[in-house]
Amino acid sequence: MLTTIPSFSDIKRTHQRISKYIIQTPVMTSKNIDEIAGCHIFFKCENFQKVGAFKMRGAANAIFSYRPEDRANGFACHSSGNHGQAVALAAKLAGSKAYVVMPKNASKVKIDAVKGYNAEVIFCEPNDQSRTKTCEDIVKKTGAILIHPFDDYNIIAGQASAAKELIEEVDDLDAIISPVGGGGLAAGTCLVAHFLDPNMEVYLGEPEAVDDAYQSLKAGKIIPNKSSDTIADGLKTTVGQKNFDILKDHVKEVLPVTEKEIVSAMKLIWERMKIVIEPSCAVPFAAILKNKELFKEKRVGVILTGGNVDLTKLPF
Amino acid sequence: MLTTIPSFSDIKRTHQRISKYIIQTPVMTSKNIDEIAGCHIFFKCENFQKVGAFKMRGAANAIFSYRPEDRANGFACHSSGNHGQAVALAAKLAGSKAYVVMPKNASKVKIDAVKGYNAEVIFCEPNDQSRTKTCEDIVKKTGAILIHPFDDYNIIAGQASAAKELIEEVDDLDAIISPVGGGGLAAGTCLVAHFLDPNMEVYLGEPEAVDDAYQSLKAGKIIPNKSSDTIADGLKTTVGQKNFDILKDHVKEVLPVTEKEIVSAMKLIWERMKIVIEPSCAVPFAAILKNKELFKEKRVGVILTGGNVDLTKLPF
Repeated sequence: MLTTIPSFSDIKRTHQRISKYIIQTPVMTSKNIDEIAGCHIFFKCENFQKVGAFKMRGAANAIFSYRPEDRANGFACHSSGNHGQAVALAAKLAGSKAYVVMPKNASKVKIDAVKGYNAEVIFCEPNDQSRTKTCEDIVKKTGAILIHPFDDYNIIAGQASAAKELIEEVDDLDAIISPVGGGGLAAGTCLVAHFLDPNMEVYLGEPEAVDDAYQSLKAGKIIPNKSSDTIADGLKTTVGQKNFDILKDHVKEVLPVTEKEIVSAMKLIWERMKIVIEPSCAVPFAAILKNKELFKEKRVGVILTGGNVDLTKLPF
Repeated sequence: MLTTIPSFSDIKRTHQRISKYIIQTPVMTSKNIDEIAGCHIFFKCENFQKVGAFKMRGAANAIFSYRPEDRANGFACHSSGNHGQAVALAAKLAGSKAYVVMPKNASKVKIDAVKGYNAEVIFCEPNDQSRTKTCEDIVKKTGAILIHPFDDYNIIAGQASAAKELIEEVDDLDAIISPVGGGGLAAGTCLVAHFLDPNMEVYLGEPEAVDDAYQSLKAGKIIPNKSSDTIADGLKTTVGQKNFDILKDHVKEVLPVTEKEIVSAMKLIWERMKIVIEPSCAVPFAAILKNKELFKEKRVGVILTGGNVDLTKLPF
C-alpha cells in the first residue's frame, strides 16, 4: 500500500503487478491529424483498454495491492462510469464483490457495463456530496473497502503506467498532455514524465466549464468546481488533494477548452482516425488545436483516456 | 498490366509495388466479441487504411502499374465513394490528375474527401448505367485512363494484399470472410486464401437487399441486382465478370444478412472494439453472428473494409 507520493520504483512495481490484468494499448499516429494540428501527435489509445478506459490500471493496482484475505468483504467506489467499471472488473478478477455508487444520470451504456461485471449498482444524486455519503453508507453496511477514484497513491501509481508505456515506446517526446478531472491520471502522468525525462513539458486539458485545476493551480490551493455542466462527463469532479500536490510541482500549464471545441475535436478524431473516443478524452486534443503555437512541430504524447460513449446520444 | 487471373507471384509483385503507398494495417481481436460470436475473430482493420478503406490497395496498384509517361492525361473512375477517394489519392501520389464520377446521393464526407485530394468530381444519377455513361464521356473528353472499381485484375491483385497480410500475420485461420459488392476484394481474398492455404474456407457476407453474388453463384451466371436499397453503400453494385469467374471456383458460401442485422453488428463493433467502421464492413461480422454454428470455435479472419461514415447520419 502506497501512503506517500509514488517513487519510480513504486510505479515500476505497480506496472508489473497489474500487467496481466491490463492491455498494453497501442500508440496511434495520423498524418492527417498531424497536418491539422501542426505537430507530431502520438495517441496512447486507452480507449482500447479493458473496460474501455485507463481507469482499469488504477483500480487493478488498488485492489490487487490488498492481500487475498483482506478482499473478503469486497470493494466499493463512487464513479460517473469508467472507474465503476474498472473496480467492478478488477474485483471480479480478484474474486471479490464490488459495490458501485453511480449518479442516477450516468449514461446507460456505463451502467449496463458495470452490471455486466456482476457488480451491485447503487444510485445517488449527481453531486459530490451525495456520491460520498452514499458510498460511506455502503462501506459501513458491508465492510467493503473504499477504492477512491483518484485521491489515492495506489490509483495514481496505476494510472501512471499509461504514460510510462507511452514514453517508453515513443522516443524524444517534447511534451505530454492528459485531461484532468480528479487528477489520478494527470498526477500519474506528471510523475512518470518527471522520472523518465525531467525536460518533458506536462500540459493538462480541461473543460472551461469545470476548470477547477486551472483555477486551483493559479490560486495555489484547491478551488472547487461550481458547475458540472460539461459534455466531458469524466472530468466533472474537483481535483483531489494528493493529486493537486503533485500537479502543482510538475504541470507547465492547464489549457481550458470550450464545449464546442471538445465536440469538434472529438468528431475530428472519429472521422480521421476511425476510432471511438469519449468526450473527456478529446479535451487534450482540443487544447492542442486551440494552442497550436505552443506545440508547433513538437512531438506530443496524448493520452486518449476512454471510449465509452452512448452511441444513441452523440453530440453530432 | 495483368490481363489474366493473378498468380501468387503477381500478387506478391503487386504487394511490393504498392507497399510504400499503403499502410500495413493492424489486426485486432476482442475477447468480448469472441464471446458473443462463439469463435476467434481476427479483424484486419482496413478502416485504418489510407483514405479509410482497402480500396487504396487496388487503386494504387492500377495506377502505378502504368509507366510515368502513360499517366499524363490522368485517371478516371466511377465510385460510390471509397474507390473514388483511392483513385484521387493514388493519382495525386503519382503526380496525375483524377476525375471521379460519383452518384449525386453519395455521402458528403466521401465527396469532400475526394475533393480534398484535388480530384475533379463529376456527379451522375445513382445507378450503374448513368455511372458508366458519365465516366465514358469523361474518358473520351480528357483522354484519362479508366480505373474500374473491381472488374480488373490489377484491382483484384491489389485488394488481395489485405488478405495476404492477414493470413501471413495470423497462423492457422480456419476461415476468412469478406463482404462482396463488385467483388474486387472478394476475388482477391479467394485467390490469396487458395494460394496460401487451400483448406481455408472462404465465405462472403452480402446484404439480402442486394444479394446478386448469392443469386449468381446459385445460378452459375451473373444475376444483376434489382435493387440498391441497402445501408451498405459500398455493396450496391453487381458482381463483375472477372470477379464472378474467380468467386465461383473458390467461395464456400455467400451468407446474406438483413439491414437490421447489419446495423446491429456495426453498433456492436463500435461499442465493444471502439473503432469506427462503415455499414458495408459490418456485413461479414453480421453473417458470423447469424451463422454461429458454421463458425463455432473456429479461427476466422474478417476484413473490416472501411471506416468512412457520415457521423451526422448514423443509423443508431
